[in-house]
Amino acid sequence: MIKAGIIGATGYAGAELVRILAGHKQVEIIWLGSRSYIDQAYASVYQNMFKIIEGTCLDDNLDELVSQADVVFTATPQGFLASVMKEEYLRKAKFIDLSADYRLKDVGIYEQWYRIEHKSPQFLDEAVYGLCEINREQVKGARLVANPGCYTTCSILTAYPLVKEGLIDPDTLIIDAKSGTSGAGRGAKANNLFCEVNENIKAYGIASHRHTPEIEEQLGYAAGHNITVSFTPHLVPMNRGILAAEYAALVKNPDGSLPGEEQIRKAYQKYYENETFIRLLEPDVYPETKWVEGSNFVDINFKIDKRTGRIIMLGALDNLVKGAAGAAVQNMNLLFGIKETEGLEMVPLFP
Amino acid sequence: MIKAGIIGATGYAGAELVRILAGHKQVEIIWLGSRSYIDQAYASVYQNMFKIIEGTCLDDNLDELVSQADVVFTATPQGFLASVMKEEYLRKAKFIDLSADYRLKDVGIYEQWYRIEHKSPQFLDEAVYGLCEINREQVKGARLVANPGCYTTCSILTAYPLVKEGLIDPDTLIIDAKSGTSGAGRGAKANNLFCEVNENIKAYGIASHRHTPEIEEQLGYAAGHNITVSFTPHLVPMNRGILAAEYAALVKNPDGSLPGEEQIRKAYQKYYENETFIRLLEPDVYPETKWVEGSNFVDINFKIDKRTGRIIMLGALDNLVKGAAGAAVQNMNLLFGIKETEGLEMVPLFP
Amino acid sequence: MIKAGIIGATGYAGAELVRILAGHKQVEIIWLGSRSYIDQAYASVYQNMFKIIEGTCLDDNLDELVSQADVVFTATPQGFLASVMKEEYLRKAKFIDLSADYRLKDVGIYEQWYRIEHKSPQFLDEAVYGLCEINREQVKGARLVANPGCYTTCSILTAYPLVKEGLIDPDTLIIDAKSGTSGAGRGAKANNLFCEVNENIKAYGIASHRHTPEIEEQLGYAAGHNITVSFTPHLVPMNRGILAAEYAALVKNPDGSLPGEEQIRKAYQKYYENETFIRLLEPDVYPETKWVEGSNFVDINFKIDKRTGRIIMLGALDNLVKGAAGAAVQNMNLLFGIKETEGLEMVPLFP
Amino acid sequence: MIKAGIIGATGYAGAELVRILAGHKQVEIIWLGSRSYIDQAYASVYQNMFKIIEGTCLDDNLDELVSQADVVFTATPQGFLASVMKEEYLRKAKFIDLSADYRLKDVGIYEQWYRIEHKSPQFLDEAVYGLCEINREQVKGARLVANPGCYTTCSILTAYPLVKEGLIDPDTLIIDAKSGTSGAGRGAKANNLFCEVNENIKAYGIASHRHTPEIEEQLGYAAGHNITVSFTPHLVPMNRGILAAEYAALVKNPDGSLPGEEQIRKAYQKYYENETFIRLLEPDVYPETKWVEGSNFVDINFKIDKRTGRIIMLGALDNLVKGAAGAAVQNMNLLFGIKETEGLEMVPLFP
Repeated sequence: MIKAGIIGATGYAGAELVRILAGHKQVEIIWLGSRSYIDQAYASVYQNMFKIIEGTCLDDNLDELVSQADVVFTATPQGFLASVMKEEYLRKAKFIDLSADYRLKDVGIYEQWYRIEHKSPQFLDEAVYGLCEINREQVKGARLVANPGCYTTCSILTAYPLVKEGLIDPDTLIIDAKSGTSGAGRGAKANNLFCEVNENIKAYGIASHRHTPEIEEQLGYAAGHNITVSFTPHLVPMNRGILAAEYAALVKNPDGSLPGEEQIRKAYQKYYENETFIRLLEPDVYPETKWVEGSNFVDINFKIDKRTGRIIMLGALDNLVKGAAGAAVQNMNLLFGIKETEGLEMVPLFP
Repeated sequence: MIKAGIIGATGYAGAELVRILAGHKQVEIIWLGSRSYIDQAYASVYQNMFKIIEGTCLDDNLDELVSQADVVFTATPQGFLASVMKEEYLRKAKFIDLSADYRLKDVGIYEQWYRIEHKSPQFLDEAVYGLCEINREQVKGARLVANPGCYTTCSILTAYPLVKEGLIDPDTLIIDAKSGTSGAGRGAKANNLFCEVNENIKAYGIASHRHTPEIEEQLGYAAGHNITVSFTPHLVPMNRGILAAEYAALVKNPDGSLPGEEQIRKAYQKYYENETFIRLLEPDVYPETKWVEGSNFVDINFKIDKRTGRIIMLGALDNLVKGAAGAAVQNMNLLFGIKETEGLEMVPLFP
Repeated sequence: MIKAGIIGATGYAGAELVRILAGHKQVEIIWLGSRSYIDQAYASVYQNMFKIIEGTCLDDNLDELVSQADVVFTATPQGFLASVMKEEYLRKAKFIDLSADYRLKDVGIYEQWYRIEHKSPQFLDEAVYGLCEINREQVKGARLVANPGCYTTCSILTAYPLVKEGLIDPDTLIIDAKSGTSGAGRGAKANNLFCEVNENIKAYGIASHRHTPEIEEQLGYAAGHNITVSFTPHLVPMNRGILAAEYAALVKNPDGSLPGEEQIRKAYQKYYENETFIRLLEPDVYPETKWVEGSNFVDINFKIDKRTGRIIMLGALDNLVKGAAGAAVQNMNLLFGIKETEGLEMVPLFP
Repeated sequence: MIKAGIIGATGYAGAELVRILAGHKQVEIIWLGSRSYIDQAYASVYQNMFKIIEGTCLDDNLDELVSQADVVFTATPQGFLASVMKEEYLRKAKFIDLSADYRLKDVGIYEQWYRIEHKSPQFLDEAVYGLCEINREQVKGARLVANPGCYTTCSILTAYPLVKEGLIDPDTLIIDAKSGTSGAGRGAKANNLFCEVNENIKAYGIASHRHTPEIEEQLGYAAGHNITVSFTPHLVPMNRGILAAEYAALVKNPDGSLPGEEQIRKAYQKYYENETFIRLLEPDVYPETKWVEGSNFVDINFKIDKRTGRIIMLGALDNLVKGAAGAAVQNMNLLFGIKETEGLEMVPLFP
């Protein structure tokens, strides 16, 4: 049994980790870290876990934790892990960080977008960006995995094959994303009260959301050069789910024709055909967040708009699963040489 | 592998059966019956099942079905199974009927409340009311299981120990129940449109809902005599979940005192202590439907109101799981001698 | 023009007062009190008011306010007004208190249920309980109006005629009420976050909610003696609306018969026939909260259950309008001799 | 009093017309047309109108209607009005058509996108596109007003000043719009059931939605040449509201600089400064649909993204008010020389 510790176990992403690991046959949760609920029964914070999770919330004592755990998940605010990380920890346990601390290779970009100082940039080089479908091999040998952001996982996977194959111009990429409210976390803010979110939709973080440089870095690798994209997130009155609509100019074929439906479909298949968790939908069927709820799937499809010469790509995932905890467990499975899908074969809940 | 056929596989209860059986290690679904979608890929009706369920919807040919299946689930409108059932079918396969056709022993009461003629009352005697926590032993040997209604499962289990132990007067029982909208089914009715349900709550079936006689019959067995209850269902703007608030006068102890907290708690424990799917919550923690969503749990608790001499009992379940498909699978497990919880250990989804 | 000041103008009830008064032809808002947003533009807190309300939030300086205002609305936490009230204020301005401070005549009951000391019980006698449909004449001459609670307005009006006429036994009264989340206020509590309320229903304040003694006092006046009722509120995933289902034993007529449909209907008509804001629905049509949203209506109907000898009464209102701000404006209209419905003829918003 | 007839009075847009006209001091509704509910009391279909609207639903007899009415509103399916319209009707009454029949000047484009034959193209020339903020003067003298679509009103008004002033390149315009479910109408379709829409978001009509050519035509007039845009609508789990996020490349100033914040703001002010129903929000405050709910406002703002050289424009309105019935009443006010805002000064409902 893999011994897993979670720091930040009472946030929504942490709680989803607990839910998934509770059904994982090869993992035992040995540490439920939560500063806010120290010494309280975990199931008294998340009553859905009553009679399922027996443990009590602990303070975050990393020295102790790494001596007991094989893997440490940090579902903590930006800056936390960077501020405490040291070589010794990485020698004792694997780390999967659900925060943004090790996602961006360029510490300057991190500090510019997150507006905090990075306290341990020396680990940036070795950290592996844990988007399994793209970085599978690197993840396997990592000590420190930077688990991707929820918006970014959806945004990147939806466009990746077309960027990689040069079928779209990445600098024309406009990503209009919509998220359920669990993405905003469990902090008690008036903005996230039921009455403020219900019967309402709004954009936020306009031209300034922190997931932008993460998308640009990763899709830049695929493009082979630096790129700049427009990214706009929206808050939707639902608990879970991200839907990304992505617009880009198609790059003409050498013969001057626009790429066709078949050509685009083949590009997606080339990269995703064997991916368990990516479902390229059938023609004319477009992703809906409800179809992936509670599961680790990303549903993807596209439509070519000949009138404008653009393509519309659509992707959907559950922000707490494939957008956070599910991806983290997928990374863990890779790190420990377990079947990649272990514990992650949840069937989506509908309705 | 148990071979299972489902008639009515594209209603919400049928689809939930498919979801649960898809994760059941000892069952193979061999028949996805759906009159409305004959020859269409099941996953084209429920896209959440894409790449999970491969089959195509079939017409309901029971003659053929019973020759292939070990167990037949009927998630069909009232009257369907009663109108086609025959001895031969029961000899060939086990039947678990999610409709109300075999729930009431008295055909007159059935016809009065459902306003349809019962076409096969000869099977009423042998049918077993499939509320496992109460009728476990009878279910094991049954050929025909009448799977309980969603409201009734919640209403009965919440009050059962106190009725059985004579701690409340069952004729004072008032059940005020609230259900998510999936209980209304997938039929395209204006009443169930998003805009009519959202931002709205209403009572319906007032003093006339069909689950009333089912509750009265089963709690009447517990009481040892016929009883009459008030039952009022409400439609709540959410997909899943039933919450029942049940009010009754406490019966005084021989010494004239009201039953106390400990006494009541012991009565619940006496019947439910070893039940995996019934969670008697800790004192002062009351059920919420979200805590059981997607799972087979029933959460129960109570409060004594000394001022009025009444007790308030509260129960919550997921109407599609413990209130329908989960209970059906639990019955199936009993029928086939499998571990009762097999395929049913889903952790509730929160948020 | 009546000059109105509001203390607590940025809570949901206060904001609803602003909305209603903004459309009231004979009122000018001269004071928008809000401790949390002092010196901020009101419309920056409630952007729906942009270009409608020009003012800035002020601190609560009652000495100054009463020298400028004809009427002061206090939409403040329990205990606030009681702690600052003095005779001088009442001489200078009319007060309409939306908190519970002056609703209960018995200071002991107030302190027992609210668990705070009442700092000005000397005004309890003169305060008028501002349920216009019942206390219209007393309100007209009042200096201090105790605006009723949201649950209580709904609960009382739904049962009042039958209690008053002796058609039901008030001690058997069980009130199961359901409220939208705006009733919980705008305070940033994790319990009221979107993700915790959405897709969820729960009971709370079981056998201990503070509106219980208020209902008992007022219906006790109608009954002519002290009564005890069961009251259970629920939180529903919607913004606005309260639905109350009220159960009681019918009192037999002198000839031993149960009261009939016509008899009950006449009792309601006797009290409500000329009430603009109470709509007794037609037979077999039951209240839904959406039908009164944004309006000052209370919709009421009932069903006799001959099987149990009980009646089920149902009432619905918008908790922020008739349950708070609308009732307050109705009281103000009475206090100042304006047409009672002035500013309150909003048509319900559907869907 | 203006005598108004409504055909299609029981759809959501028709019902909103009834709601708004019920509060309009100079209008009397004399005809509530509804084929589905002939001879039924209007308030039995929309119970919110109980004791407010007394009339009964009538069949659609236009010959009779135009002899009684000063103005006829048609809130009917595409093709209805075009199939019955004749010169005689236009001589007897003013027509405000909420369908798309007379919105597009080019009958070929109408037939291509709507896939129905236009039965009275002879009236296309005289029909005035009723977007008051842009076509105010033409509307005043019209006999036949084509009331704009909900998405189009939002999409056009949000971008219009910048297109008109040449500050953005209209051919780069990408409109990602999100709508509440009332936009889908009251037809009983499984897709619009509560359980299918709730906890879900999806795009639809991708690269094929019928509002696309309407946007292109109107913004083409502003641009001075034909344009092509990308338009993607989404279905959001809420009743009311449209939010449009619109992306376009900024056109550089003659000196090579990008237009700045002040320059853009002035362009909006130039066109909208005196518009009652358009609220250009303050810098860094972005539209949310809840802030305009129930009102005739359009809230607009923008953000320049220097990194990409693009601007993001955001607009929000209530699809049933400014997106349909409110705009129709605004048109009616212009047609009859009444104050343009009469009956339309509803304060947005929040929360």
